[in-house]
Amino acid sequence: MTERIYTAGLVVIGDEILSGRTHDKNIAQIASWLQVQGIRLSEVRVVPDVIERIVEAVNALREGYDYLFTTGGIGPTHDDITVDAVAAALGVEVVIHPDARAILEKYYADKPGGLNEARLRMARVPEGAELIPNRMSGAPGIKLGNIHLMAGVPHITAGMLDALTGTLEGGLPLLAETIGCWTPESEVADILRQVETAHENCQIGSYPFFREGRVGANFVVRSTSRDELRSCVDSLCDGLATAGFDFTPGGI
Amino acid sequence: MTERIYTAGLVVIGDEILSGRTHDKNIAQIASWLQVQGIRLSEVRVVPDVIERIVEAVNALREGYDYLFTTGGIGPTHDDITVDAVAAALGVEVVIHPDARAILEKYYADKPGGLNEARLRMARVPEGAELIPNRMSGAPGIKLGNIHLMAGVPHITAGMLDALTGTLEGGLPLLAETIGCWTPESEVADILRQVETAHENCQIGSYPFFREGRVGANFVVRSTSRDELRSCVDSLCDGLATAGFDFTPGGI
Repeated sequence: MTERIYTAGLVVIGDEILSGRTHDKNIAQIASWLQVQGIRLSEVRVVPDVIERIVEAVNALREGYDYLFTTGGIGPTHDDITVDAVAAALGVEVVIHPDARAILEKYYADKPGGLNEARLRMARVPEGAELIPNRMSGAPGIKLGNIHLMAGVPHITAGMLDALTGTLEGGLPLLAETIGCWTPESEVADILRQVETAHENCQIGSYPFFREGRVGANFVVRSTSRDELRSCVDSLCDGLATAGFDFTPGGI
Repeated sequence: MTERIYTAGLVVIGDEILSGRTHDKNIAQIASWLQVQGIRLSEVRVVPDVIERIVEAVNALREGYDYLFTTGGIGPTHDDITVDAVAAALGVEVVIHPDARAILEKYYADKPGGLNEARLRMARVPEGAELIPNRMSGAPGIKLGNIHLMAGVPHITAGMLDALTGTLEGGLPLLAETIGCWTPESEVADILRQVETAHENCQIGSYPFFREGRVGANFVVRSTSRDELRSCVDSLCDGLATAGFDFTPGGI
């Protein structure tokens, strides 16, 4: 049984991430959202606010995966160049989207400065694009083919993802179940390997941690099949119990 | 006046980041550390625990930048394949490093299970590599040419970075100063653009936020020259004051 796996790439655009000034929250947010849509985030690239670098990453990832998301660089200031970069990557013009202009006119009607030239930049889209509703502030996201341009501010991106929910074709969601142990992963490495080998449609990830002065690990079993996931988790629990390790279903 | 700019790439290895399960902390941590070393983090790629994908990213970034860092995948379990991937990327063998073996023998001497086969995996290195001290737990990091293999667990990586401090050749550190405004960035976009254009060795980033129900932005001015940074920040403050905007030196 082969099943279609849907994949996505993400380009995070922003000097502020690469300088360490801002801790990215969009990778985890978009990854989690994609899982629920039945789409796997397969690669992320973080690139600076340099048009050639954005173009290169956009072209690599839009061709390599079913969907491409970008975050950042769609605001009103001079360092917001994502629209220009995506248009250049696709070889299309940048145009003012009439609906985006109307949204911004309404949003800024009663605000100081009104729809000034800088704000009108947020109505610019690569020719042929549709808008992604922004329920948090004025400027919309942008969708063109398999490319989705989202905001850099995480809660605005959250609203845009919400608006996209259920609109992208996906496959079976990747299910996951976690088993936690207050045991160094190096004591149970053989069990993990054996159980994974015996369940070919499951993967087991091992994520060690140090908490409260003690060493432990969470083992995450992933599969698109609920039955195979169940069987693999049961085998792992049996293996741990047989070897005398305590474990916590659901993870620690 | 041209000055040598030192750059680094980072490959974050781990299904747990791409699934959204774990929020990455290593990008910001390594970025901030590199800034202090006078090295700019220029690109990050997040890839899954798949050897071909790691090899591809390692080869792209080790050739594209002065330094390459990787995080994740150097532990004792079956999903820890970074050493194998880097060896494959470089076309060298994987060998047991005698010093790493000695470190692990000592570390596990009094622990249940001792230095078992899984733990001995953590002494494996691409042939020719040196070790990076791990002050937090047993297994060391690995350095080979311009490549640095760090742990996935952030506080272990912090200790490894600490051990590397001052050992990498860098250029002038990128200095930064922040000015905050309780003003939408779209009202001051023209000022930002004009000031940046007038100071060719400075960049200004604009980072909007929503807090306490109000809109604001921080403007980060960056330069390797302390004098030019000072001059650019002064111009920005003058421009904001002249246009009647309140601002907060140091940022909000």
